[in-house]
Amino acid sequence: MGAFKYRGATNAIRCLNDDEKKRGVVTHSSGNHAAALSLAAKMNGVKARIVMPENAPVVKKNAVAGYGADITFCKPTLQSREETTGMIIGETGAVLIHPYNNFNVICGQGTAALELLEDIADLDIVIAPIGGGGLMSGTSTAVKAINDRIKVIGAEPLNANDAWQSFTTGRLVPSNNPKTVADGLLTSLCELTFSIIRKNVDEILTITEESIIECMLLVWERMKIIIEPSSATVLAVIKENPDKFRGRKTGLMISGGNVDFRKLPFSQQV
Amino acid sequence: MGAFKYRGATNAIRCLNDDEKKRGVVTHSSGNHAAALSLAAKMNGVKARIVMPENAPVVKKNAVAGYGADITFCKPTLQSREETTGMIIGETGAVLIHPYNNFNVICGQGTAALELLEDIADLDIVIAPIGGGGLMSGTSTAVKAINDRIKVIGAEPLNANDAWQSFTTGRLVPSNNPKTVADGLLTSLCELTFSIIRKNVDEILTITEESIIECMLLVWERMKIIIEPSSATVLAVIKENPDKFRGRKTGLMISGGNVDFRKLPFSQQV
Repeated sequence: MGAFKYRGATNAIRCLNDDEKKRGVVTHSSGNHAAALSLAAKMNGVKARIVMPENAPVVKKNAVAGYGADITFCKPTLQSREETTGMIIGETGAVLIHPYNNFNVICGQGTAALELLEDIADLDIVIAPIGGGGLMSGTSTAVKAINDRIKVIGAEPLNANDAWQSFTTGRLVPSNNPKTVADGLLTSLCELTFSIIRKNVDEILTITEESIIECMLLVWERMKIIIEPSSATVLAVIKENPDKFRGRKTGLMISGGNVDFRKLPFSQQV
Repeated sequence: MGAFKYRGATNAIRCLNDDEKKRGVVTHSSGNHAAALSLAAKMNGVKARIVMPENAPVVKKNAVAGYGADITFCKPTLQSREETTGMIIGETGAVLIHPYNNFNVICGQGTAALELLEDIADLDIVIAPIGGGGLMSGTSTAVKAINDRIKVIGAEPLNANDAWQSFTTGRLVPSNNPKTVADGLLTSLCELTFSIIRKNVDEILTITEESIIECMLLVWERMKIIIEPSSATVLAVIKENPDKFRGRKTGLMISGGNVDFRKLPFSQQV
């Protein structure tokens, strides 16, 4: 389904024991993780139940339904999502697969960096975006395990810089009403991802909305690949800090291409 | 530079003798061939001169200039383009590399199909778009030489169906004021490409503008690859003729992603 979330969801489902597989899985999400878990469950013969806010975009409802998952709608509040999920767990015994607060999800997401280093071993730096911290937790763990001289840098929008704040202050700062075009990076770190990131990540760099949009356009135009704003953050880090990367072999984790073609952020700029 | 034109231009330049290489190459084009020839010349240490209409888009002028070619501007008429090109040949002895009326260009463009069949040998059908016929001439020659049981089908917009008319009537019909979103397919066949296509192509199928746009959007959304309308024609052929392709292993020649993101044809439709 076009994003690293599928790696995490697949690993989490493959790590279930037979009894858990019979009970099925559940999550609350309106984004890529919902679709990824639905598809991964289907591919492994496991039932998936997805709690979605009733105001989720039709295209996302259709994607999840198309992968054969059962959808339960809830009010668009965190409380309603968690209550509804808890009810389903109580009724069915389904196993909760959180989008990033889950060790096996993180391990699965780390396989992308593993494959990058298999292809190109002599990297100096790897950059990954930070939202909830799942991809970065998996990426940084894989990179440091293989070669701890490779520097790991996190990319985060200045307008959603909770991970940068947490990393800098040493205590978990939740996201506070973030407003960024990189809508995949709105979520906050959890204790699990924060602890891994503190241990493995060397630096977090924040970038502006303008840089994110400009770099997304650059990838569209030159690489002919459709990436979403969240994925362009890693290139924006290089654009804003050229001296830091000059002459250094840098790997970028680019994943995710959910774009609404009716509302392109650069339609006024090009 | 992201399109098959580079294959043709590279082969044409590599086939020059030393004396011709010293004199350099020239072409008149405002599109992908101009950029392709400029880059291929640069990569092979050959001087390129490009005749462009003075009203060519700035982005295309910049691309050609960026690859180090000399640009000579002319009036936006075929007569002025040909006169200006002739003058340059007279002055410099530069070798004309036509975008498709050139055997070595065609051979170079055929290498894409060659690589496709190296990767997937057991295809039943190969579909390529038809504009001037260079890609299709190279594709069909390569496919039939390797396995003449593979059917070769041409894709052409209904609104620019000169190749279909030529193929059907058996005589070369020039393009007459074509209006299609597939702006890479506006040109007419020449005697060379027509003769190769008559010999090697099994069928030409025309498709509507709506199908082209719908299939372009489908590739953007599902494959996350930016392709231009001309490249989407091959998928549109399948969409309009599902019975013809059901159960048959079909290879599509998809190449070219020149898109103006300010004027997306599906911005009103999605």
